[in-house]
Amino acid sequence: MKNVEGYSKKVRTPGEKTGLGPGALVFVGKPRPEAVRVDVIHYDEGRLVELYDVSAEECANLVAQKGVTWINVTGIHDVELIGKLGKCLGLHPLTTEDVVNTAQRPKVEEFPDYIFIVLKMIYLGQRTDETDTEHLSLILGSNFVVLFQEKEGDVFDGVRERIRSAKGRIRSMGADYLAYALIDSVVDHYFLFVEHFGDVIEDLDDRIIEDPKPEDLALLHKIKQNIIKIRKVVWPLREEIRVLEKGESPLIRSDTRVFLRDVSDHIMQIVEMIETFRDLISGLHDLYLSNVSNRMNEIMKVLTLIATVFMPITFIAGIYGMNFEYMPELKWRWGYFAVLAVMLLVVLAMIGFFRKKKWL
Amino acid sequence: MKNVEGYSKKVRTPGEKTGLGPGALVFVGKPRPEAVRVDVIHYDEGRLVELYDVSAEECANLVAQKGVTWINVTGIHDVELIGKLGKCLGLHPLTTEDVVNTAQRPKVEEFPDYIFIVLKMIYLGQRTDETDTEHLSLILGSNFVVLFQEKEGDVFDGVRERIRSAKGRIRSMGADYLAYALIDSVVDHYFLFVEHFGDVIEDLDDRIIEDPKPEDLALLHKIKQNIIKIRKVVWPLREEIRVLEKGESPLIRSDTRVFLRDVSDHIMQIVEMIETFRDLISGLHDLYLSNVSNRMNEIMKVLTLIATVFMPITFIAGIYGMNFEYMPELKWRWGYFAVLAVMLLVVLAMIGFFRKKKWL
Amino acid sequence: MKNVEGYSKKVRTPGEKTGLGPGALVFVGKPRPEAVRVDVIHYDEGRLVELYDVSAEECANLVAQKGVTWINVTGIHDVELIGKLGKCLGLHPLTTEDVVNTAQRPKVEEFPDYIFIVLKMIYLGQRTDETDTEHLSLILGSNFVVLFQEKEGDVFDGVRERIRSAKGRIRSMGADYLAYALIDSVVDHYFLFVEHFGDVIEDLDDRIIEDPKPEDLALLHKIKQNIIKIRKVVWPLREEIRVLEKGESPLIRSDTRVFLRDVSDHIMQIVEMIETFRDLISGLHDLYLSNVSNRMNEIMKVLTLIATVFMPITFIAGIYGMNFEYMPELKWRWGYFAVLAVMLLVVLAMIGFFRKKKWL
Amino acid sequence: MKNVEGYSKKVRTPGEKTGLGPGALVFVGKPRPEAVRVDVIHYDEGRLVELYDVSAEECANLVAQKGVTWINVTGIHDVELIGKLGKCLGLHPLTTEDVVNTAQRPKVEEFPDYIFIVLKMIYLGQRTDETDTEHLSLILGSNFVVLFQEKEGDVFDGVRERIRSAKGRIRSMGADYLAYALIDSVVDHYFLFVEHFGDVIEDLDDRIIEDPKPEDLALLHKIKQNIIKIRKVVWPLREEIRVLEKGESPLIRSDTRVFLRDVSDHIMQIVEMIETFRDLISGLHDLYLSNVSNRMNEIMKVLTLIATVFMPITFIAGIYGMNFEYMPELKWRWGYFAVLAVMLLVVLAMIGFFRKKKWL
Amino acid sequence: MKNVEGYSKKVRTPGEKTGLGPGALVFVGKPRPEAVRVDVIHYDEGRLVELYDVSAEECANLVAQKGVTWINVTGIHDVELIGKLGKCLGLHPLTTEDVVNTAQRPKVEEFPDYIFIVLKMIYLGQRTDETDTEHLSLILGSNFVVLFQEKEGDVFDGVRERIRSAKGRIRSMGADYLAYALIDSVVDHYFLFVEHFGDVIEDLDDRIIEDPKPEDLALLHKIKQNIIKIRKVVWPLREEIRVLEKGESPLIRSDTRVFLRDVSDHIMQIVEMIETFRDLISGLHDLYLSNVSNRMNEIMKVLTLIATVFMPITFIAGIYGMNFEYMPELKWRWGYFAVLAVMLLVVLAMIGFFRKKKWL
Ligand SMILES: [Mg+2]
Ligand SMILES: [Mg+2]
Ligand SMILES: [Mg+2]
Ligand SMILES: [Mg+2]
Ligand SMILES: [Mg+2]
Ligand SMILES: [Mg+2]
Ligand SMILES: [Mg+2]
Ligand SMILES: [Mg+2]
Ligand SMILES: [Mg+2]
Ligand SMILES: [Mg+2]
Ligand SMILES: [Mg+2]
Ligand SMILES: [Mg+2]
Ligand SMILES: [Mg+2]
Ligand SMILES: [Mg+2]
Ligand SMILES: [Mg+2]
Ligand SMILES: [Mg+2]
Ligand SMILES: [Mg+2]
Ligand SMILES: [Mg+2]
Ligand SMILES: [Mg+2]
Ligand SMILES: [Mg+2]
Ligand SMILES: [Mg+2]
Ligand SMILES: [Mg+2]
Ligand SMILES: [Mg+2]
Ligand SMILES: [Mg+2]
Ligand SMILES: [Mg+2]
Ligand SMILES: [Mg+2]
Ligand SMILES: [Mg+2]
Ligand SMILES: [Mg+2]
Ligand SMILES: [Mg+2]
Ligand SMILES: [Mg+2]
Ligand SMILES: [Mg+2]
Repeated sequence: MKNVEGYSKKVRTPGEKTGLGPGALVFVGKPRPEAVRVDVIHYDEGRLVELYDVSAEECANLVAQKGVTWINVTGIHDVELIGKLGKCLGLHPLTTEDVVNTAQRPKVEEFPDYIFIVLKMIYLGQRTDETDTEHLSLILGSNFVVLFQEKEGDVFDGVRERIRSAKGRIRSMGADYLAYALIDSVVDHYFLFVEHFGDVIEDLDDRIIEDPKPEDLALLHKIKQNIIKIRKVVWPLREEIRVLEKGESPLIRSDTRVFLRDVSDHIMQIVEMIETFRDLISGLHDLYLSNVSNRMNEIMKVLTLIATVFMPITFIAGIYGMNFEYMPELKWRWGYFAVLAVMLLVVLAMIGFFRKKKWL
Repeated sequence: MKNVEGYSKKVRTPGEKTGLGPGALVFVGKPRPEAVRVDVIHYDEGRLVELYDVSAEECANLVAQKGVTWINVTGIHDVELIGKLGKCLGLHPLTTEDVVNTAQRPKVEEFPDYIFIVLKMIYLGQRTDETDTEHLSLILGSNFVVLFQEKEGDVFDGVRERIRSAKGRIRSMGADYLAYALIDSVVDHYFLFVEHFGDVIEDLDDRIIEDPKPEDLALLHKIKQNIIKIRKVVWPLREEIRVLEKGESPLIRSDTRVFLRDVSDHIMQIVEMIETFRDLISGLHDLYLSNVSNRMNEIMKVLTLIATVFMPITFIAGIYGMNFEYMPELKWRWGYFAVLAVMLLVVLAMIGFFRKKKWL
Repeated sequence: MKNVEGYSKKVRTPGEKTGLGPGALVFVGKPRPEAVRVDVIHYDEGRLVELYDVSAEECANLVAQKGVTWINVTGIHDVELIGKLGKCLGLHPLTTEDVVNTAQRPKVEEFPDYIFIVLKMIYLGQRTDETDTEHLSLILGSNFVVLFQEKEGDVFDGVRERIRSAKGRIRSMGADYLAYALIDSVVDHYFLFVEHFGDVIEDLDDRIIEDPKPEDLALLHKIKQNIIKIRKVVWPLREEIRVLEKGESPLIRSDTRVFLRDVSDHIMQIVEMIETFRDLISGLHDLYLSNVSNRMNEIMKVLTLIATVFMPITFIAGIYGMNFEYMPELKWRWGYFAVLAVMLLVVLAMIGFFRKKKWL
Repeated sequence: MKNVEGYSKKVRTPGEKTGLGPGALVFVGKPRPEAVRVDVIHYDEGRLVELYDVSAEECANLVAQKGVTWINVTGIHDVELIGKLGKCLGLHPLTTEDVVNTAQRPKVEEFPDYIFIVLKMIYLGQRTDETDTEHLSLILGSNFVVLFQEKEGDVFDGVRERIRSAKGRIRSMGADYLAYALIDSVVDHYFLFVEHFGDVIEDLDDRIIEDPKPEDLALLHKIKQNIIKIRKVVWPLREEIRVLEKGESPLIRSDTRVFLRDVSDHIMQIVEMIETFRDLISGLHDLYLSNVSNRMNEIMKVLTLIATVFMPITFIAGIYGMNFEYMPELKWRWGYFAVLAVMLLVVLAMIGFFRKKKWL
Repeated sequence: MKNVEGYSKKVRTPGEKTGLGPGALVFVGKPRPEAVRVDVIHYDEGRLVELYDVSAEECANLVAQKGVTWINVTGIHDVELIGKLGKCLGLHPLTTEDVVNTAQRPKVEEFPDYIFIVLKMIYLGQRTDETDTEHLSLILGSNFVVLFQEKEGDVFDGVRERIRSAKGRIRSMGADYLAYALIDSVVDHYFLFVEHFGDVIEDLDDRIIEDPKPEDLALLHKIKQNIIKIRKVVWPLREEIRVLEKGESPLIRSDTRVFLRDVSDHIMQIVEMIETFRDLISGLHDLYLSNVSNRMNEIMKVLTLIATVFMPITFIAGIYGMNFEYMPELKWRWGYFAVLAVMLLVVLAMIGFFRKKKWL
């Protein structure tokens, strides 16, 4: 709780940890002003206890009792607190190191006593092209789940509601099902994100087909970058959750595995949507460029037509604008009209040439 | 049957399910006005019963009797009915959730008592570039098949005919063969779709080689998007059906496996055709762009030729159009004709230059 | 033999089979006017019998005798005959269905009593960019080979010659070796095809480097499409023949496997050549476009040079072509020559500018 | 120590070793003037000895004693010394050959008595687009680690500090943990490098969106080449370190394996970042080109607009600049103003045309 | 030795073998005028015999004796001799067929009594963009190696030297080590080739960044084709040599396997270099095209600037060059100077417009 006051706004990167030993507890990310808070929900089929601002020792106590304990940590910038909690719950230093490293990629790691899962939450920003990610770490022990959240606010109110109201099967199942329910909430939330970009791409498609504008290109570029971002977040989960589902860890009961398969299926769906977006975006980019080429061609045709028609006749006019003393045509009675007629012929010939070339 | 009147036209998306627990029965898709209908065909080698508008309990009764039961559900927007049917037949809540989720990707999942298969039917729309998909869910139990269809109308009349007329081996084989026959009908129908696009691509090829037009590009873009769509529908089946064929599920007898291999082979054929289309479309796009470049070059050559020929001689005409008092050439007897001769020389020189550059 | 007269020229596609049951005997392809013909060569080390226009029952008789029987069927559009032959030889309906389906992709399938191999023969058309394929189906039983050919004419005269003259080891080996010899003949023939396209690509390379023409682009496009076509024919064989070679089918003796490895190696070589062609073609396409860009640049330089040089001096001439009453320069004795000198300076300055920009 | 004086600056390449036998000790790389130095840190939980400029025989002596021995060799251009050291420690000639070959790719090789690991250190140069690599070879024996460094200076001061101060678990663990700590230091250092390029790419993105310049393209090209370079260094490690972690070598104790998994995870993170960079760079390149196309279009529009507006009216002016004796319009009272009005109409018509085409 | 005189220069291709049986001994490649020569080196740790122009029978005799026999065949166009040698040494007809087929791809095949390895030697031609390949076939028996070389001259003098001088371990090891030494010599030689192209690409990079020329593009194209060529030669070795190293053939002793791993590592290094070259070349191609686009843009800007500035003022001059009788401005005292001033204003306005567009 120390770094609440006087916290620096500097974002820290993994590179700054160079030279430190493994398990060095260094917060990587943008420090936040709020104090880190530990809340606990402890339940079994008949009982439910909710506690706020719990100390590390109390957490360990609750875990030692029968029933499922969900330790929810909001904020990970107080490395001392995280370290103490990790020690009380028997976490490997490499685990706590990753918990406070917001740059850590999504992964699943099995330790002898627990499974460690790193996830990213994605929030839509205010502008279409902005996204915000939150680092989540989930520890699944035999009868407890610790969830470390980087920031205030989450997508787990549905889970809390189901626990409180004893709705569904959550109260009668173990910590593994709770972990599943949390992961499922995160993955379900990805759909909102992916559907949003699907809509934006569809809109862009209409616009680019009808009347491509440079702004569309910039938006396309932004979307492409966001797709790359979410891909980086979702892709590693694909294999890892499947390993969990097919694995042999005693921490995951067999009736929970079918639910993990469901999450796995959702992740596959999101991955397929992202891949489809990549294809669509690349197709839109090609279409944009082709349309620009088409327009350029049309513009050049007009320019060439104008130049080709007017240059010759302007030249003819120039001829008879010369001031030579002896230019017999100038004296002819119908000279002027003859020249106009010649000009008309030239114009018609040029237009005929263009027709033949199918440029008109 | 409740949501027939007053049904909303809003299409619901998976993202709206965020926060709900697993197995939450929420219809995802475009609600339809018709009532959901359950029809049953119950048969064995000697007997055939067809029932219409059957209740969930009657379905369970029929399934309990000897013989194969095909429960065909048309419409999946009445989640209450689907849920009740699922409960009567012992389906996992995650299964019924996916049944009413039209955004669910194709997949095969083995449960202890049944195999759950999600497929998509594709229909050609009225315009070349429109396609329509229908969400199909197939449950294969030991002696029954439940087929959930999103919409009225299907491609299974051939199967019904064979059952009714006892043609072929279908009446003498089990539920697994019925499931195969249904999957096979769906996959066979993909050929119509793929062949149609093959024809469209072939036509486009001829047009783009001869005389590429911007409309062709737009059509190419639409086809590309449709190919991406059908790819998404067919691709996941590839591995899944193969797993079914090679798998060890007791629900699939060995003499049905050879038929599954046949479906698997058809899917591979469609996948290969789609991949070929991607190559062909990409080649056509390149060709279109190259042709546009070639035309641009030709246009620019004409423009340059005209400008290069007429600018110098127009300049010469301009010289002798100046009004200086003392310009000796203007007085010369043959000045005018000399200038015309000079202009001719300039034109010939320019044309010679172009010939040398091979631009003419 | 019925559909000889009054045969329709319509090409039938797999899509038209939609709704039919598995094993439905429907000819897919372009029907041919000739009657379907069944010829048989029956041999062992000491004996050789050749029979023409053999009936299905006679075939079954021959197969029941000692020695190797090669049943060669020319034409597959008489589905009744094919069906009868299949029944006599104990073929699965799915096999005969694929035999008469010219759209069937190449594959290898093991059945309990025989191995079913689908191949495509490729012939070069008269024009460089035309290819023709023939659907071949090969059934390898314990002591017989049935070869179904779509069209008259084949590449197996070498094999027939070796059987007749008892040259090489073919007479002393089993049906598996005969099957190998036939596959090998087909694959060897692919080389002709691939080598032809290699030559065409090499020619194109020279032409595009020296003087790229739009026709080269069209030819490149045609070759690309042909490469896609042959790739589709050869690629599936790659894995399938390897499976046959490494497999455990009792129908293939171990001393034949080393020959299958040789075919497998040839297929790999063809696959590698095709992949190389794809790279070369893509490189040529890039080169073509780059060359077109280069030329465009050169043309634009000439246009810009001309315009930049003549526009300013034409403007100057225009100035002194104005008819103002009071224009002092017009009266000057050396005005005309001064203006010519100024024009010369402008031209030199422009050329200097172009030199600096390295455009000249 | 011989090649200190009179060392040649010529960089030697692997190709120069052609014709030599395997294990030929030839230094490949840029020779350095400094003498090669061997320093040793020998420690166990209670004891710590640091020795400088140790001979090969002393090294072997120390290794024979209890405790962990870290032999650090700075400089690998004295092949005699390296060879002698290799012989004393029982290294295979192929190992010492690779130690002195700075062109050797990263790899992990298991020998009966030791594991041989080749790594590359990457340093940022002074300019954004410059990188410098150092060849590192690490030998992990049962109780010793030999680290061969190509150049002075390294990234292992953190490790040395932890050994000296007995901080962390390093003093209580074996040679395998020391090897891990060294590899981890190298990999941690890659983050600095990768983060730097991430920043540069982000800057470029802003610049190219706003106002793309040819210099940006050159920088993009340089970054692309650096990314290719680092990819070559990191990519091979991915699989190799994973093999080490999952392998069964008795040289790596099970409590070290979890640390190797951590390094493996870091490498995956770097690999994913590099892949993301490739995508981003390719997107930026496309954006640059599209922007250039857009600008070209805009320029062409202006040119066409100007030419299309002024060519026709200049032609009209040219008509009435002709000197024909009989041109009735010239005598008209309002001829001049009528012509001006006609010109105005032409200009308005042209602008209307452009509006219709949406070019204005 | 027969085809020395009167040998035809026609290059024969694999396609010409169509119709021949397996094992048909037909030379594929460009026939050479020299006689085929068989030389033998027979050695063990204590003894060394070198024989020239040895007959097939003598070869078989030597192989039957103790010690290692290296049979080196220079020239493979005398199929009779090769066939006889093959028969004497017990080679499978398919092996000898591949020996005389210079179009055969690199591969490794295990036969019961020997291992058959096909390699390609690559020589640099005189011009940067020319390469020459030589077909090498290596037979590794239990105590002999046969090396078939297509052409005079090889890269094995280092190996011969080591055998003669008994340097290194070669005399004390078996035929497997000799085979390794020969393969290693070939692979080592690839480095020369690859390093050469690395240098050429580096040069091109500098040139294209500074001042791209069409010749650079042609060179880039040539290099790309050479890279495709060497890739085809090296790529198949990658997997095959690894199979040899990891395999269980009794012909390869375990202490030779570590050397094969070294070759395998060299091949990986070359493969990685080639892949890097592909990336670099593709980057250079993109850079070239982008630079050409940039230049085009610059040229178009100049053209547009000139046209936009001079067209309006030339038009104004044209106005006052008209010969209307009643044009009041012409009579004004300061009309001429007023018009010049207007022209100046137009020029300034245009330049201002260009500045605003950032085109100047
Ligand atoms: Mg560290
Ligand atoms: Mg770490
Ligand atoms: Mg949060
Ligand atoms: Mg979910
Ligand atoms: Mg969509
Ligand atoms: Mg689901
Ligand atoms: Mg949910
Ligand atoms: Mg769900
Ligand atoms: Mg339906
Ligand atoms: Mg079918
Ligand atoms: Mg086609
Ligand atoms: Mg079939
Ligand atoms: Mg491109
Ligand atoms: Mg069918
Ligand atoms: Mg079928
Ligand atoms: Mg035929
Ligand atoms: Mg062959
Ligand atoms: Mg070639
Ligand atoms: Mg062969
Ligand atoms: Mg060597
Ligand atoms: Mg070596
Ligand atoms: Mg160093
Ligand atoms: Mg680390
Ligand atoms: Mg970033
Ligand atoms: Mg970590
Ligand atoms: Mg042959
Ligand atoms: Mg052969
Ligand atoms: Mg040679
Ligand atoms: Mg080597
Ligand atoms: Mg390099
Ligand atoms: Mg080595």
